[in-house]
Amino acid sequence: MSPSQARLVDTLRARFGERAVVTDAADIAPWLTDWRGRWTGKSAAILQPATTGEVAAMVQLAGEAGAPLVPQGGNTSMVGGATPPDDGSALILSLRRMNRIRSIGPQGAVAEAGVILAELHQSADDIGCRFPLTLGARGSCTIGGLVSTNAGGTQVLRFGTMRGLVAGLEAVLPDGTIHDGLSGLKKDNRGPSIDQLLIGAEGTLGVVTAARLRLVPAVAARAVAWLGLASPADALAVLRALEDSTDRIEGFELLPAESLKAVLAHVPGTRSPLDGEHPWHVLVEATASGGADDPGALLERLLAPMLERGLVRDATIAASEGQAEAFWRLRDSLSEAERAVYGPATQHDISVPVGAMPAFLVEASAAVEAAFPGSHASGFGHLGDGNIHFHVRAGSRASTDWLAQEGEAVTRLVDDLVVAAGGSISAEHGIGQMKRAELARLSPDRVAILKAIKAGLDRRTIMNPGKLI
Amino acid sequence: MSPSQARLVDTLRARFGERAVVTDAADIAPWLTDWRGRWTGKSAAILQPATTGEVAAMVQLAGEAGAPLVPQGGNTSMVGGATPPDDGSALILSLRRMNRIRSIGPQGAVAEAGVILAELHQSADDIGCRFPLTLGARGSCTIGGLVSTNAGGTQVLRFGTMRGLVAGLEAVLPDGTIHDGLSGLKKDNRGPSIDQLLIGAEGTLGVVTAARLRLVPAVAARAVAWLGLASPADALAVLRALEDSTDRIEGFELLPAESLKAVLAHVPGTRSPLDGEHPWHVLVEATASGGADDPGALLERLLAPMLERGLVRDATIAASEGQAEAFWRLRDSLSEAERAVYGPATQHDISVPVGAMPAFLVEASAAVEAAFPGSHASGFGHLGDGNIHFHVRAGSRASTDWLAQEGEAVTRLVDDLVVAAGGSISAEHGIGQMKRAELARLSPDRVAILKAIKAGLDRRTIMNPGKLI
Repeated sequence: MSPSQARLVDTLRARFGERAVVTDAADIAPWLTDWRGRWTGKSAAILQPATTGEVAAMVQLAGEAGAPLVPQGGNTSMVGGATPPDDGSALILSLRRMNRIRSIGPQGAVAEAGVILAELHQSADDIGCRFPLTLGARGSCTIGGLVSTNAGGTQVLRFGTMRGLVAGLEAVLPDGTIHDGLSGLKKDNRGPSIDQLLIGAEGTLGVVTAARLRLVPAVAARAVAWLGLASPADALAVLRALEDSTDRIEGFELLPAESLKAVLAHVPGTRSPLDGEHPWHVLVEATASGGADDPGALLERLLAPMLERGLVRDATIAASEGQAEAFWRLRDSLSEAERAVYGPATQHDISVPVGAMPAFLVEASAAVEAAFPGSHASGFGHLGDGNIHFHVRAGSRASTDWLAQEGEAVTRLVDDLVVAAGGSISAEHGIGQMKRAELARLSPDRVAILKAIKAGLDRRTIMNPGKLI
Repeated sequence: MSPSQARLVDTLRARFGERAVVTDAADIAPWLTDWRGRWTGKSAAILQPATTGEVAAMVQLAGEAGAPLVPQGGNTSMVGGATPPDDGSALILSLRRMNRIRSIGPQGAVAEAGVILAELHQSADDIGCRFPLTLGARGSCTIGGLVSTNAGGTQVLRFGTMRGLVAGLEAVLPDGTIHDGLSGLKKDNRGPSIDQLLIGAEGTLGVVTAARLRLVPAVAARAVAWLGLASPADALAVLRALEDSTDRIEGFELLPAESLKAVLAHVPGTRSPLDGEHPWHVLVEATASGGADDPGALLERLLAPMLERGLVRDATIAASEGQAEAFWRLRDSLSEAERAVYGPATQHDISVPVGAMPAFLVEASAAVEAAFPGSHASGFGHLGDGNIHFHVRAGSRASTDWLAQEGEAVTRLVDDLVVAAGGSISAEHGIGQMKRAELARLSPDRVAILKAIKAGLDRRTIMNPGKLI
């Protein structure tokens, strides 16, 4: 611990009590490494404020001490966004003691930054509502992190990412100012939205302390269909036709045949929803929140003409909730099964305009396989959001250190192809440490703009060093 | 014209031709005063770029010359946001030559900043779609201004303000950098959204040059109902009950009895939709975009139980499109009729949380009338957005200079009450010149944050001087 960090820790302990600062190395250790074990940093202390006022005081004192802070929620970043630098220059600012749901009702919930997503789901469920965003880490990830990374997931199609679900934020700016946007005004034109600026800022412009979040009615019924298709272009045509007729489509996930094969080979007890072979598969989920609509009948009615004219090669609708879950399990097991069956792959969380995705999938796969002969590229995921998880496997190039030797070159090529298609090298995971160099290489203007904003707001350069920009 | 402005004008003429700069005083004059005639400024020239590249070059050269710029679209600001300062220190940067709709289809339109709203409406209509935002100035106001002021209007309830309708922006930052966000990615987590930062920034952080905008299906049928109610609280209960049952409500406008009386007295050929007297009135519009739904039958079904239990005192549904238009005309004539019948009033475009609006209307009216005995306060407008146009009339205090003598004190009191209710002193019109002092008085922290952002982005302080902050 540097002398200035030590003085800061003493001051904070004296002012906010023993619980406000953790300095025991064993207690700190679990929070120094990201959950996938890719980045490990050093930090002499974890600051643990219990209230927004304490966050503000800690940020202000840290600024005066010139001590950078790394805001941390559930530490589930996919890109090293919440891991401290490895030189020990920063302290972790953990929001996990701020874990109250301050209010909840059909009009929305006000949740503190440290509330775990699964707890919010449960609280919404308890009042007959739901918070319509979910992802794999829901048992650990926290609201503050979800806001700061503009998190997405498998339910974005209808209700959007966090950006669309935040009605207002409370946050501490880098100089210790508290921004209170929690009243959740539907209309507020006092200049640009400070709330929106903090969404996706990865803690580089301030610390989110609480959020007012939209809730939607609980799902009364859902129907899950599985389709066999000839191509991603046909899948997109199906999506457009569905969207023209209903706003009830909540999931639309694309899978290539080989990915499904890997799941069937790897996960015991799984079976293909359809007889026969199809080059591409789609899982569609439609919901109803009550009333007259039967989402199964809706899907049946909308899919029938597509089957008739051959746009959809085959389709089945889950006959029970158990079968619906089995369909989703095929989708959710995909990454794990691919890794087990086909070996390691570079993984690219990318997006392009929705209409450009079918061509991108075909052309980018061909380009990568041509540049790295023997490799195999494929994509799966949220076609309706233009967000595909694009994987490149070693194939016949396999060796124990393929990823280490060629991973970066593969990534640069994929990122170049994404930029050429007008896309984003980070669709939902953020930039963090992992994609920082690529962002600087491919979007120097964007980085310059973000740096200028940060220069204005974070004059002492204390917020989440080494991330994003 | 200052020597540096003159040099800049010469440079721009040499580089971009005669049409790029207007210096004839008679041609400039109409653009120096806002449309309501409240603010008049001076400007020696109007710069008129034809392309985004020209905007970028002009902004960069203006920065190097230290010549501030006032971006201007249709010059329809309600708050003096597009009028130059009166010391002649700034030049107007008009976007009206950039008036192309670059592309349009069911997935959205890309419109340049100078496209007039009514033209976008027409172009959307031509392809069986609509752009679901409208307001009184639609024949003059432009897309760039609508984005830069996060415009609202009477259709915000279902589709939101401009913030919710922008899928991506193209803009020139104060240093001349072009930000291109037009590819319209549904998911893009490369840091905070630069698009969102420019929405509502009133041209103080850059110049919007084009926008990708969402379109929605054209309206196939609409139904307009007129309700008589006992109180704003009952009106809110009606709105909540409707919203629980359908997402088809696009308009929900609240009017007090006395405002309706003014319209009936002032506008020839109008008549009250309902027999009998009611303290409050609501206009509800429901739409269908095709398919089985009949919005009239929907409203009838949903309103019946409310009539039965007395929550709604009386109701009628327009029997024809002509009658529907007549209902809307009552609402749209309100400001003009009030002014003619009751005399001048201070007008406050304010918002509070939707749930707090009924109490605010009652309590704020009482507080204002107590502080200014003889005055009369009332509110009308977009209850569903928490946005009321709150008017205070002289009443028995009337004198020719009442507004001049007491207007500011009334405004300060109303603004204090709005802030106490967790609201915004500008719901949809922005800050511009008109509300700048009040924003600084009531929201010093917000102003400090906005100034810090501007300090980072606009280092030469050339973008829209004297507005917002």
